[in-house]
Amino acid sequence: MAKKKNAISPTREENYPEWYQEVIKEGDLAENSPVRGCMVIKPWGYALWENIVKKLDARFKEVGVENAYFPIFIPLELMQKEAEHIEGFAKECAVVTHHRLTKKDGKLVPDGKLAEPLIVRPTSETIIGESFAKWVSSYRDLPILLNQWCNIVRWEMRTRLFLRTSEFLWQEGHTVHQTRDEAFSFTETILNIYADVVEEELAIPVIRGKKSPMERFPGAVETMCIEAMMQDGKALQAGTSHFLGQNFAKGSNIKFQSQEGKEEFAWTTSWGASTRLIGGLIMTHSDDDGLIIPPKIAPKQVVLLPIIKDEANEQKILDHVYSIKKEIESKEFNNNKISVEIDNKEQGGIRVWRWIKKGIPIRIEIGIKELENDTLFVGRRDNGEKKSVKRDEFVNNISNILDEMQKNIFSNALKYRNDNIFEIDENEEFYEFFKSEDKKGFTLSPWCGSIECEKKIQEDLSVTIRCVPFNDKTDRGKCICCGKESTTKVFFAKSY
Amino acid sequence: MAKKKNAISPTREENYPEWYQEVIKEGDLAENSPVRGCMVIKPWGYALWENIVKKLDARFKEVGVENAYFPIFIPLELMQKEAEHIEGFAKECAVVTHHRLTKKDGKLVPDGKLAEPLIVRPTSETIIGESFAKWVSSYRDLPILLNQWCNIVRWEMRTRLFLRTSEFLWQEGHTVHQTRDEAFSFTETILNIYADVVEEELAIPVIRGKKSPMERFPGAVETMCIEAMMQDGKALQAGTSHFLGQNFAKGSNIKFQSQEGKEEFAWTTSWGASTRLIGGLIMTHSDDDGLIIPPKIAPKQVVLLPIIKDEANEQKILDHVYSIKKEIESKEFNNNKISVEIDNKEQGGIRVWRWIKKGIPIRIEIGIKELENDTLFVGRRDNGEKKSVKRDEFVNNISNILDEMQKNIFSNALKYRNDNIFEIDENEEFYEFFKSEDKKGFTLSPWCGSIECEKKIQEDLSVTIRCVPFNDKTDRGKCICCGKESTTKVFFAKSY
Repeated sequence: MAKKKNAISPTREENYPEWYQEVIKEGDLAENSPVRGCMVIKPWGYALWENIVKKLDARFKEVGVENAYFPIFIPLELMQKEAEHIEGFAKECAVVTHHRLTKKDGKLVPDGKLAEPLIVRPTSETIIGESFAKWVSSYRDLPILLNQWCNIVRWEMRTRLFLRTSEFLWQEGHTVHQTRDEAFSFTETILNIYADVVEEELAIPVIRGKKSPMERFPGAVETMCIEAMMQDGKALQAGTSHFLGQNFAKGSNIKFQSQEGKEEFAWTTSWGASTRLIGGLIMTHSDDDGLIIPPKIAPKQVVLLPIIKDEANEQKILDHVYSIKKEIESKEFNNNKISVEIDNKEQGGIRVWRWIKKGIPIRIEIGIKELENDTLFVGRRDNGEKKSVKRDEFVNNISNILDEMQKNIFSNALKYRNDNIFEIDENEEFYEFFKSEDKKGFTLSPWCGSIECEKKIQEDLSVTIRCVPFNDKTDRGKCICCGKESTTKVFFAKSY
Repeated sequence: MAKKKNAISPTREENYPEWYQEVIKEGDLAENSPVRGCMVIKPWGYALWENIVKKLDARFKEVGVENAYFPIFIPLELMQKEAEHIEGFAKECAVVTHHRLTKKDGKLVPDGKLAEPLIVRPTSETIIGESFAKWVSSYRDLPILLNQWCNIVRWEMRTRLFLRTSEFLWQEGHTVHQTRDEAFSFTETILNIYADVVEEELAIPVIRGKKSPMERFPGAVETMCIEAMMQDGKALQAGTSHFLGQNFAKGSNIKFQSQEGKEEFAWTTSWGASTRLIGGLIMTHSDDDGLIIPPKIAPKQVVLLPIIKDEANEQKILDHVYSIKKEIESKEFNNNKISVEIDNKEQGGIRVWRWIKKGIPIRIEIGIKELENDTLFVGRRDNGEKKSVKRDEFVNNISNILDEMQKNIFSNALKYRNDNIFEIDENEEFYEFFKSEDKKGFTLSPWCGSIECEKKIQEDLSVTIRCVPFNDKTDRGKCICCGKESTTKVFFAKSY
């Protein structure tokens, strides 16, 4: 039997990173821009982001978070203050030094030098902290639960669409609380929102846990995270929620008078998720024919493709297709009307393959035969099934079918992940696993808790601790690195 | 009778610009940031923007517009190209020259000089044009109807919250069409969307028209606009939609092969509305007690204020208040659930005044008396009415009441505007009107169509043509400036 020809070349197996870029290109999600490291997010890709925003935003608001907007520029002085407080402070950022362009010999050149340079926000911690310090004076002002949806810039040397770009879109939440417990519990609340939305809507199974000291956010007391497994076995961090203790409040001078009349430093959290999630979505579900988008997060759930072989039937078929569009759009899925597109741009295989590569959940071809028999020719993206079905039956059942597809896509991803987590307790086996070109996945292995062992493993294997399960100190063993007694097993992996 | 004491000082009459700043401060909408010219939009202000975005975005999508995202940075080279094409090209912008901060003698300093500076987008025309040129090759690729919600930066010397800030939020739409007629008609479609949303949701009456040559967007063939009147009689441009003809396509080299196989330049449009609309909202409706927010755009429509004079009754009253919240939230208004806040932070007048100043449409006070009598003590922000009402009757009727308030707020603004438009045909009267400190408003006056007359009036009076009615060339008279025969009456005003 001849090898099945795939729409995406190379395949995942042939070259995973190149396959990823091709899926994005062929799925019309995004492209590189003339500005190094920045991307143009095209409508099909941006619609994914809009859906992610909608889902997360609704969940944040349910727990009392309000949105606000802070300036894109951070005065150098604030960064200076931050740099003094925080080890590992990120220094790769865009620096604004002038506020004008002037023509000189017919050319535009920078002019109007600023007395003090401004930084394009790599995160808004410092400038939001400055506002919090001003806004908070009594326990009555607390909690403050703020979030901002915005663009940020971190100068990256090696970029990859969605996964690592100099500019990206994200949300950053920043909250201030009276007590340690309230702040810690809010950190957990947000982590659970991330996990729920990523699992339920994006159909990406995640492991919840906390970061080891080396992977922790600079300045955080605890970084909680969700980690997903991509189809090359590497980990992708899909969201982090940081419990900052009083560290950040001390740095930014966020103090309040307590109910007992004492002046105290506040307890803060911060948390973020970004357009990186789209990279995770692509790498979790897509196959060698391109994107597979879970119905709940798809920009459209259904595309209708009128098949017109004969001009005489054209209007009749189009009218029929429009009426089917209306019928399907009257149905609900995931608390929204089902969204339907009609593509009548051209006929034939190119059109069908375009929608396969774009990952739309359901394609429906409708020609004169379907019209006369009152059937639909339906293609499902999740399992590749193609068949002729009775119109009424299919349309009436479409919400259930989408639901089944969502579950199917999730369970495929879950199976893949679970099949590729290995409990490895022996140093030699561990090294062999991560050095082997054939093996991929996470290991769950004992770790003594020391930074030295973390560092050694990273240096030897480019492998890091992705997360420490919340119920740590229950799983005995001998550290995978130093062999000392350990009480904790953690997830190790290569990562994005 | 003693003068009524107002919550906002100064009053509109005493000092309109200062009144504006105070309304924003007391309404907790926004504040200046440590970065010169940039603002912090606080939750109550940002929620207004979220509602504006939601309304506009839905309307754009109805006419086929898709959202996308382009990089925040524009290479200097692209600006250079633009500058060569366009007179009056804006040169006040933030220039990024370095991509790193380095510690030197303990201080952070800019490092990593860029080979070519980058500009923080003052608008995305050029970088989007570059993509369009790449994406368009055949008539089959058209139309392209794109929009982007983003932040932009224009270095401003004198800034005012929402009205003129160095960074602001906006949407910019950019579309490409095969024919002149299609592009022109799309320009009108968008103008009508702006007008509808601003009138129906923000309750701001607007005049639709086109700009005179002097006020036209650089490079546009026609700029259509909506203009609103503020309570000081000045005009605020609330949205513009530009028909760019083939000018922009020629500058950016956007060409396509037509159905007849000929290579042609495309026809393009661009259009934008910004956080400035919030400034317009404030200045149209608010009074000397602070904000008045039309119910359709209000972050919340109702606040419930439990009155607790006696600890023994506290839980009983709170339970009652929560059940009323649920009752009201089950009602719909403007296709959404009515949104209700409970404020139990403190008791007394400060709390009531806080909500008056925040402009929430309906305040409801509920104490033991109200509980026992099954009544509500209701305050309406639009007309200042305060009275005790039967609970059932009020709650069942609340959607109608909000509707009536929305209409009332609009008709107040419409009356104010119409009362302050003056048909003035004589040069002397025109000069006297705009020189007088007592008189305010727009005039509708004949204009011969020459730029010279426009310029002279602007120089003499700081007055500009706000818009030319669409049905021009029908209204005869003698030019208000030069006295020549004219066929057009236009709106003149001072403006923001």
